[in-house]
Amino acid sequence: MIFTSDNASGAHPAVLAALAAANEGYTMPYGADDGTGRVEALLREIFEAPEARVFLVATGTAANGLALATLAQPWSSIWCHRIAHIEADECNAPEFFSGGAKLSLLDGPGAKLDAAELDAALAAAGAGGVHHAQPGALSLTQATEQGAVYTVTEIEALAETAHARGLRVHMDGTRFANALAASNATPAAMSHRAGVDILCLGATKCGALGAEAVILFDPALAWEFELRRKRGGHLFSKMRFLSAQMEAWLAAGLWLRLAAQANAMGARLAEGLRARGVPIVSPAEANLLFVHFTAAQHAALQAAGARYYADPLQDPGTLGTPGALGAGAVSARLVASYATQAQDVDRFLDALPVSAPLPNAPGLQASASVAP
Amino acid sequence: MIFTSDNASGAHPAVLAALAAANEGYTMPYGADDGTGRVEALLREIFEAPEARVFLVATGTAANGLALATLAQPWSSIWCHRIAHIEADECNAPEFFSGGAKLSLLDGPGAKLDAAELDAALAAAGAGGVHHAQPGALSLTQATEQGAVYTVTEIEALAETAHARGLRVHMDGTRFANALAASNATPAAMSHRAGVDILCLGATKCGALGAEAVILFDPALAWEFELRRKRGGHLFSKMRFLSAQMEAWLAAGLWLRLAAQANAMGARLAEGLRARGVPIVSPAEANLLFVHFTAAQHAALQAAGARYYADPLQDPGTLGTPGALGAGAVSARLVASYATQAQDVDRFLDALPVSAPLPNAPGLQASASVAP
Amino acid sequence: MIFTSDNASGAHPAVLAALAAANEGYTMPYGADDGTGRVEALLREIFEAPEARVFLVATGTAANGLALATLAQPWSSIWCHRIAHIEADECNAPEFFSGGAKLSLLDGPGAKLDAAELDAALAAAGAGGVHHAQPGALSLTQATEQGAVYTVTEIEALAETAHARGLRVHMDGTRFANALAASNATPAAMSHRAGVDILCLGATKCGALGAEAVILFDPALAWEFELRRKRGGHLFSKMRFLSAQMEAWLAAGLWLRLAAQANAMGARLAEGLRARGVPIVSPAEANLLFVHFTAAQHAALQAAGARYYADPLQDPGTLGTPGALGAGAVSARLVASYATQAQDVDRFLDALPVSAPLPNAPGLQASASVAP
Amino acid sequence: MIFTSDNASGAHPAVLAALAAANEGYTMPYGADDGTGRVEALLREIFEAPEARVFLVATGTAANGLALATLAQPWSSIWCHRIAHIEADECNAPEFFSGGAKLSLLDGPGAKLDAAELDAALAAAGAGGVHHAQPGALSLTQATEQGAVYTVTEIEALAETAHARGLRVHMDGTRFANALAASNATPAAMSHRAGVDILCLGATKCGALGAEAVILFDPALAWEFELRRKRGGHLFSKMRFLSAQMEAWLAAGLWLRLAAQANAMGARLAEGLRARGVPIVSPAEANLLFVHFTAAQHAALQAAGARYYADPLQDPGTLGTPGALGAGAVSARLVASYATQAQDVDRFLDALPVSAPLPNAPGLQASASVAP
Repeated sequence: MIFTSDNASGAHPAVLAALAAANEGYTMPYGADDGTGRVEALLREIFEAPEARVFLVATGTAANGLALATLAQPWSSIWCHRIAHIEADECNAPEFFSGGAKLSLLDGPGAKLDAAELDAALAAAGAGGVHHAQPGALSLTQATEQGAVYTVTEIEALAETAHARGLRVHMDGTRFANALAASNATPAAMSHRAGVDILCLGATKCGALGAEAVILFDPALAWEFELRRKRGGHLFSKMRFLSAQMEAWLAAGLWLRLAAQANAMGARLAEGLRARGVPIVSPAEANLLFVHFTAAQHAALQAAGARYYADPLQDPGTLGTPGALGAGAVSARLVASYATQAQDVDRFLDALPVSAPLPNAPGLQASASVAP
Repeated sequence: MIFTSDNASGAHPAVLAALAAANEGYTMPYGADDGTGRVEALLREIFEAPEARVFLVATGTAANGLALATLAQPWSSIWCHRIAHIEADECNAPEFFSGGAKLSLLDGPGAKLDAAELDAALAAAGAGGVHHAQPGALSLTQATEQGAVYTVTEIEALAETAHARGLRVHMDGTRFANALAASNATPAAMSHRAGVDILCLGATKCGALGAEAVILFDPALAWEFELRRKRGGHLFSKMRFLSAQMEAWLAAGLWLRLAAQANAMGARLAEGLRARGVPIVSPAEANLLFVHFTAAQHAALQAAGARYYADPLQDPGTLGTPGALGAGAVSARLVASYATQAQDVDRFLDALPVSAPLPNAPGLQASASVAP
Repeated sequence: MIFTSDNASGAHPAVLAALAAANEGYTMPYGADDGTGRVEALLREIFEAPEARVFLVATGTAANGLALATLAQPWSSIWCHRIAHIEADECNAPEFFSGGAKLSLLDGPGAKLDAAELDAALAAAGAGGVHHAQPGALSLTQATEQGAVYTVTEIEALAETAHARGLRVHMDGTRFANALAASNATPAAMSHRAGVDILCLGATKCGALGAEAVILFDPALAWEFELRRKRGGHLFSKMRFLSAQMEAWLAAGLWLRLAAQANAMGARLAEGLRARGVPIVSPAEANLLFVHFTAAQHAALQAAGARYYADPLQDPGTLGTPGALGAGAVSARLVASYATQAQDVDRFLDALPVSAPLPNAPGLQASASVAP
Repeated sequence: MIFTSDNASGAHPAVLAALAAANEGYTMPYGADDGTGRVEALLREIFEAPEARVFLVATGTAANGLALATLAQPWSSIWCHRIAHIEADECNAPEFFSGGAKLSLLDGPGAKLDAAELDAALAAAGAGGVHHAQPGALSLTQATEQGAVYTVTEIEALAETAHARGLRVHMDGTRFANALAASNATPAAMSHRAGVDILCLGATKCGALGAEAVILFDPALAWEFELRRKRGGHLFSKMRFLSAQMEAWLAAGLWLRLAAQANAMGARLAEGLRARGVPIVSPAEANLLFVHFTAAQHAALQAAGARYYADPLQDPGTLGTPGALGAGAVSARLVASYATQAQDVDRFLDALPVSAPLPNAPGLQASASVAP
């Protein structure tokens, strides 16, 4: 009953087995191993992007930071959602990698940005004046930090707006697999065909030990990215152990099956919680959701061994019924992973005292101060 | 009739004369001239801060950037108002000088921050977690970018909140002289006694050619500041020409007389505009104010040779009367300087077509996208 | 017959097995797993440093960059050997992590620094003047990039000099295990007791997949280090996979046995080469050495499948005998790893055409432009 | 008898008068004043570079740092002489402005670089490999920190080498006027026609209060430079006071007359010292020279009120005659300025006890640790 984060799970057996297989013999270091080449070929095929360049790193923060620094200048703004991971949970990593770019924040339900609001904000920010931060990059998280999934049409609109205003587009795809599994779009449609310039495709949260593929759809950015990766300490000498993880994860659609399992468990959780009258305050389109528990519910779950991040709910009457949830209510984030099983969800639901049904409030702002 | 900015004026004759006087003979460079020593002594006396260290630079952006970098860490947040000069008009200079600190934004009428809101924001931001930006600095602008003046009590409350949360306090005093002249507080009461750790005292906008004194009330910060100033290219070899400006400006209260003149002209402008029914949408407590002009008023003023920054007014019916100002209305910033004379103001007012009186709306948000 | 680098080997089976064992179940992320705690306890015991703090990262460049940034200021100098990895092979990573510190270079045979020369250089560099880079850190590589091993006495002298001049001491211990195995010193004697402030203990080149322990002997540096690691993207969510590697590598002295094997193979290589008259131009005290091959030797080895980094020898008569080695001679770096076996060495030696014996020249400067 | 530095002088009366003239009335800020436009036009004409862009700053360190950051990348090397001002006297400013570029050092008598040595060093450094610093910029100081003047032919050779290796060329022209006055070259021949990409033309040391013109011969670099200048706090609001200085300094060849005067006084000093047997150990081609004084000479000069920077001479027998200068001998730097008069020089020479003539040793390395 661990729903703290998808990073609390270990690695999928196939990924571990690939490590062992890759361990045989000697290989050239720093990405000159055959496996790294195969991963690039594989991702070009999966994303229908024969010119794309692919580089592997071990953490999502590294992938995001290096990608953003490649797209934005030190004197520019990176536009993102107020609770985007790059803003809220990376201890100024984008500022560090970019040499001092500014993160400019927008709001939007479900941690999603809206193209019209982006356009208005960019128009108001002006451009061209030497006194102001210049247009740099737009960063979208797919799926979002609140479990929403951008549609291809939404991404297209945001990317078109960004490009028209001189920004390039970064996608934090820590949970891109979950977003893809939750839609019927192709990888290409959800990324470069919609205008994404760099996608950070995360495997870590979905079955790897620590592996992220940064896909540069514009190959002209590759050399700068390589230099940034090296001087950031993110070029692995024994690269075979990153490429083996990624290759195994992508092979035969494993990545999408694992993501689909995480999503299914998220949905099962949502369904069960709704049935028990627990207000779900986030979109719940992928493998994570935010809910409001009463103090009694929270205590019972903790006692039963359930684990998740929770914050005191500032206004326990936020759902239209003053005092509906009562003192001690919490906002909780629940994350299912590829390793979550139906019985884990069911045990969690069984441990939950049923409250009187309350109206759901999907537009309600979830608490953002959960662990990343 | 130039009301674009107080930086459109030249230098006061006494300041220019001091340059000529300082030009005689040879002096030691880099601040080892006698004048620099006298300026430090003078400011210690004026601010009743015998331990304070004083360093001169030539621009406000340099003063702010160096001061903030001395107070905040690269992995921390600098909290300021959304339209603070350091956020809106310095092209990421604080991020540059600090090595990538984040500017975290707050709102508030008149470009003023509120202690309770600051406290709530800091509480929500959390502290201590390695994933998040750490507490760094609070930056207050005195007088604010919208012409408001913090009271000593307000500064005390803000500084106390900041210190309690682990932030140090920076004051952007580009118009500190104006703020002081508009109050009956002492320099000490409005700065270190209220909790300000570093004050950037600007002379440039108020009669100098280009001279700002950075006053470190905590002398332990001095050496780091000196190193930052040097490696930022802000240590002048012929420092005598900065110290001469500052010494002349401070001598015999000239700085306060010049600031008082600018304030008086701002007040005369405000009074005249109010009498003519022009909505003043900012506090107008120092030497600058924001107003709304109708298209006809704006055109007439431009035709008469008046100059100021103006932005199209998004909603010309914002004053409670739908459509009150009509299409083409603008939000204008008017800044009086030490050089502004009563006849300049009166000519401006004379050029203004009188509109029907409208209710004033001091809480209305002024447009921020003016030139700095 | 792969002698390109010790990073061409895979991971030791015990390390891989530990990954599999660590994969079971859920763990807390970001270093809150039990294994990370055990690694810290283990290293405190091994290094007899009960107060030390230990942090894991995945690459040596990250370990070095983060450690140096914690010890040096942006306006300071980091003193190191001209061919130190941090200078020659990290694409400005120390400059990046430190926010612009300068690397100041010293020479010395075998890539070793000398305390007296360091002292003279520091004296000449001056200190205290605001115009100059300030004293920052001393960085020693143990074993050096040319296969020399500092004695404890040498480290003590260097660290004492550094501390007396206001520098803190960093040890790049990518091959610390090899250095230790080559000496009869204890880990404590070779590190903090000799004056090392931060040791970067590398496991990657000696049997891990990618794991380095940064040991802060001064615990007061820990929090800054943690923040730097996070914002550098080097904090792993699934930290258990770093801690498992490190724990298995340290367990029951495995690390020293592996290092001893690498050293033994280096010695066997050196002995065989000397017997065949090949000039060895580096100290050959650990697991790597630099030699000069004639064109015929180089060609024969390549043809036999031997692999190593080689550079054209600028002056093939450098050994006192003009033209001794003839045109086409190369300077080659040969690195043995924990995985190298005696038969690998012997096959290499068998493939080598015997040349007329030449006087050895251990003081000769080896070519530095090998791959890292 | 002040020969400490050319920055110990004040401003030329014509420059001061221009400040007063520029003070009249209102002007647009930040370089939109007419004077700034005229300076650009004037420098385009003087340098026969109709496309060049010109930006003014107030210090040489700012000019150099901003220029170098525009030419070099954070992951590249800036090649310069070991005692170049940018390396020795700017407290890591180039590293700061560039975001962590590395300064790679070369030697050469008179603080001059040699094209063949540069080429060899660049060849040895390699290029293209991701592990190494990339080719960034070459920085030449004209005249050098030891008073040598590059010929046009030398600059051409250096710039050609640099460009062929992928480096762009920066010229630190703090004393460019002195170099020009010492040669019969045109400004164009000594800069862009010889391959210089950015020239930092210093007026501060030669008659201004604080004014440097950065001349970008490639206008494509202009916008990035402008943004860097702004975010570095080096964009002056009251720019008229920089442009007025520069305009007056350039008008009717004043700059060259002032530089010629400084050079003439340097030559008078050299001649007199030679006649008195004082060893001159630097080229003495512009307005500064390094000499060796005996203890008695040094004491007598100090007693007479002469001022200059001096360092203990490590080996007072360096001139071929063991013990020639005796204990307490010093290496002294003497700098004449535009304000130095013949009688100042003569008084200095008169105060000097005549020593037995010693052989001059122009190739001897002058002490570098003088003040900047």
